[in-house]
Amino acid sequence: MAVIAVDMDDVMADTLAKILKVYNERYNGTMTRENLNERYLKEVLLGENVSKVRSLVQEPGFFGDIAVMPGAPECLEKLSKKHKIFIASAAMDYPTSFTCKFEWLVRHFPFISPRNFVFCGDKSIIHADYLIDDQPRFLHAFTGQGILFDTPHNVQETGYPRVRNWAEVDAYFEAL
Amino acid sequence: MAVIAVDMDDVMADTLAKILKVYNERYNGTMTRENLNERYLKEVLLGENVSKVRSLVQEPGFFGDIAVMPGAPECLEKLSKKHKIFIASAAMDYPTSFTCKFEWLVRHFPFISPRNFVFCGDKSIIHADYLIDDQPRFLHAFTGQGILFDTPHNVQETGYPRVRNWAEVDAYFEAL
Repeated sequence: MAVIAVDMDDVMADTLAKILKVYNERYNGTMTRENLNERYLKEVLLGENVSKVRSLVQEPGFFGDIAVMPGAPECLEKLSKKHKIFIASAAMDYPTSFTCKFEWLVRHFPFISPRNFVFCGDKSIIHADYLIDDQPRFLHAFTGQGILFDTPHNVQETGYPRVRNWAEVDAYFEAL
Repeated sequence: MAVIAVDMDDVMADTLAKILKVYNERYNGTMTRENLNERYLKEVLLGENVSKVRSLVQEPGFFGDIAVMPGAPECLEKLSKKHKIFIASAAMDYPTSFTCKFEWLVRHFPFISPRNFVFCGDKSIIHADYLIDDQPRFLHAFTGQGILFDTPHNVQETGYPRVRNWAEVDAYFEAL
């Protein structure tokens, strides 16, 4: 049995899709995932548009209706039968998101006990064998084996095994 | 430099005092810290009184005006100059408390970055050298050195160094 910590945004939840959708609707934007071209959204947008996105994400309820990443519940339910699963979300960056994130997890991942949810800021504090995360900076801080979940901004990162979707997460742990 | 994780309720915050005060006021009770006599409050109260306390703690705002444990800010500010301090609160047991707890920490411990706050449920996930906690079950789960913060319910526990107040926390780390 391994202890597997899993990031929430852009790993379990398609947060980027929600940000792009709301940003485009509200500001008549035309941003797509492809436009990002290996960058964070905040690097692509100019000037005041960055703070527009930041305040949009901080709106109460923003995290409530984000789509579940395809295959995440099935794969995590399967993994939870053999391993101990923790959810590790850097929620401290968005204190308005706590309740929304908690309720989202309970709704979509009812087989994971809320006692295994962790809202943190710095993932060096996470004690687990694996961390599946899209952000290289969190994997750098983590002391176990990092697994990089593919997303536009992390294309250049080569320091960790890369998984492009939840089928690949499943294959990674099947091959252990 | 060591990484020191610190529990919030009954270590940084005098949560028991607040519970006793509100319980006594609301239900004409006469419970004191001394009445607890080596037990948890929920073990001393009978029947429906246990659920009264549980729902009282879940009221929004309950955690907002809890008194700071004497000496905690001074000691933690001093420790934070030499060590990395994380706050590790089992807040997942009380999802209604997230915002209150976050704001309380920012207000009383402004020298600790919110990125070092951790809201969790199971403290086996905490990766630190030390954990200062009043609950033996959290220290059992923790893989570093546990330090037991004295409170009525843990008097029988002898498996960890015991600190009775924040002056003793200071002395413990001075003697390292």
